[in-house]
Amino acid sequence: MSLAGLGEFGLIARIRQAVSDPADLPLGIGDDCAAALVPAGELLLTTTDLLIEGVHFRRDWTTVRDLGRKSVAVNISDIAAMGGTPRQIFLGVGLPADFPLTEIEGFLDGVLEAAGEYGAALAGGDTCRSPGPLFISVTAQGSVPPQELLTRGGARPGDAIYVSGTLGDSALALRQLQAGTLPQSALARRHHDPQARVTLGRQLAAGHLASAMIDLSDGLLGDLGHILTASGVGARLFPDSLPLSEPLRWVLPELLAQQELALTGGEDYELLFTVPPAQQGGLAALASAGLPLTRIGEIVSEPGLKLLAADGSLLPLPSGSFKHFGSADR
Amino acid sequence: MSLAGLGEFGLIARIRQAVSDPADLPLGIGDDCAAALVPAGELLLTTTDLLIEGVHFRRDWTTVRDLGRKSVAVNISDIAAMGGTPRQIFLGVGLPADFPLTEIEGFLDGVLEAAGEYGAALAGGDTCRSPGPLFISVTAQGSVPPQELLTRGGARPGDAIYVSGTLGDSALALRQLQAGTLPQSALARRHHDPQARVTLGRQLAAGHLASAMIDLSDGLLGDLGHILTASGVGARLFPDSLPLSEPLRWVLPELLAQQELALTGGEDYELLFTVPPAQQGGLAALASAGLPLTRIGEIVSEPGLKLLAADGSLLPLPSGSFKHFGSADR
Repeated sequence: MSLAGLGEFGLIARIRQAVSDPADLPLGIGDDCAAALVPAGELLLTTTDLLIEGVHFRRDWTTVRDLGRKSVAVNISDIAAMGGTPRQIFLGVGLPADFPLTEIEGFLDGVLEAAGEYGAALAGGDTCRSPGPLFISVTAQGSVPPQELLTRGGARPGDAIYVSGTLGDSALALRQLQAGTLPQSALARRHHDPQARVTLGRQLAAGHLASAMIDLSDGLLGDLGHILTASGVGARLFPDSLPLSEPLRWVLPELLAQQELALTGGEDYELLFTVPPAQQGGLAALASAGLPLTRIGEIVSEPGLKLLAADGSLLPLPSGSFKHFGSADR
Repeated sequence: MSLAGLGEFGLIARIRQAVSDPADLPLGIGDDCAAALVPAGELLLTTTDLLIEGVHFRRDWTTVRDLGRKSVAVNISDIAAMGGTPRQIFLGVGLPADFPLTEIEGFLDGVLEAAGEYGAALAGGDTCRSPGPLFISVTAQGSVPPQELLTRGGARPGDAIYVSGTLGDSALALRQLQAGTLPQSALARRHHDPQARVTLGRQLAAGHLASAMIDLSDGLLGDLGHILTASGVGARLFPDSLPLSEPLRWVLPELLAQQELALTGGEDYELLFTVPPAQQGGLAALASAGLPLTRIGEIVSEPGLKLLAADGSLLPLPSGSFKHFGSADR
């Protein structure tokens, strides 16, 4: 049975059955709008992302369950990057007419599973047929107390630059897939099933430990560029300190290739944040809790971005690394 | 110049320049999330809709400016249907690689123009290339005091059924376009540039004049079916009382054809609402204000939907009129 056999209303009915509304969602799926409660005094956070078959994913490289999980995670990652608590997910899906019902169900299972893990409710959506590729649109809502909001614009000279987890794993898996190689399983998970760093984002925000934050979707250099532009500052990065996973170092033994991938590879969905000198003690306590937090550079007043080797010598920026920063700031 | 020439960041920069953030939007376009203030004590309303080229629109039938306007209006219409005040718009666009920059700008002009008319701010979005058709995803947010929220579930036996404006104009224009005929201009406007009935929705909600409400997107019978199902009631409709425009009656002189179109034609984006007996005086005062409000039937306790002629005799339901109601309730 395909979407054409089930019909849009049948699909919505199935989704409704699978979803129970939490207390902060008086009206979920099934009316013209969802109606939600934003905690008193908190800011509403909203982000939207598109995932298009052939651009962001290939159906022969991923399972539909992972695709559902990733569609949620990449949006929740934006909530995490503001220091927010995830609340609601809205899902738009344009389905090719021959898309099998079992695949739709697998995709929805993935969406609901991931939403549940992040404490978010599927609160509405729209489904229709697509005359082209599979088209997914996710909007995520969250909330944050105003005094805890972490933007891209708060980095100041003297702040340390930190990143969570390891870098380049997702991009390496993608590169292997593109080359026709089966990625090592840990790398493939990083690409197909990324984790939004919600707990870390909340800890940094609630503890007032960070001055600016962004999630890594376009690649470290590009996303750091967004912080530098928004904050009106520059940065020095130390490539030798970039956190690299064991599987990445095993697949890619050459140090320069490792560093280039860590600097430019996209879809890490780790948090990149800046920490004022006075807060670095608080951060050390946090870093011992599991997810590694690595100091990779520092904010300076002089605009622009420099890569520095361990001996202090200047390294060249990887070519074609990040169009945005390259064209706008240099 | 196309999207490929401009680049995604160039497009976002252009949108940012065109947008100034209102007071209830401390953080608009340009960070990981938008951050908005929901008025204290009010519920957050959210709705999302997809518009896919070849399914919901054809680029040779509409201007990109109208397409931008309609993308906003059909979402705001859902906010209106809950009695809400529009607040923010989030826009996702998957653009074919050869889509010209001037067309993108025209589309954005339409989005911003319509958002402005409804008092909503463009607060975020996502743009990327589409390997298939033009793909548009809009999420609209609004707010409403909880005691004024109008759902589909409040209709009670004895309530009168009302509709705003005239019915079938948009569907007639679409039918003419499909037949290769140029629609009369007033009909074409109803199809390409529908108006969300925000003011009426707010008046009905704030005055506690309606018991249930929905906006007409799938056609009168289908959308009334949603109210009946959600409210656990039935209805009698009087086809002779359906509000029809002059242009529709001119193009379609036969009464049965007029009524069938008014009952089943989609995309009217008028408000369909039920009015308790005690509120019909208040409604009469409202109806004199401009937009016609027409009583077209009544809610009954017996489930199902009956069409009654002026002499009280039963009329047949149009065939294939509305799959949802047909399969679920009869």
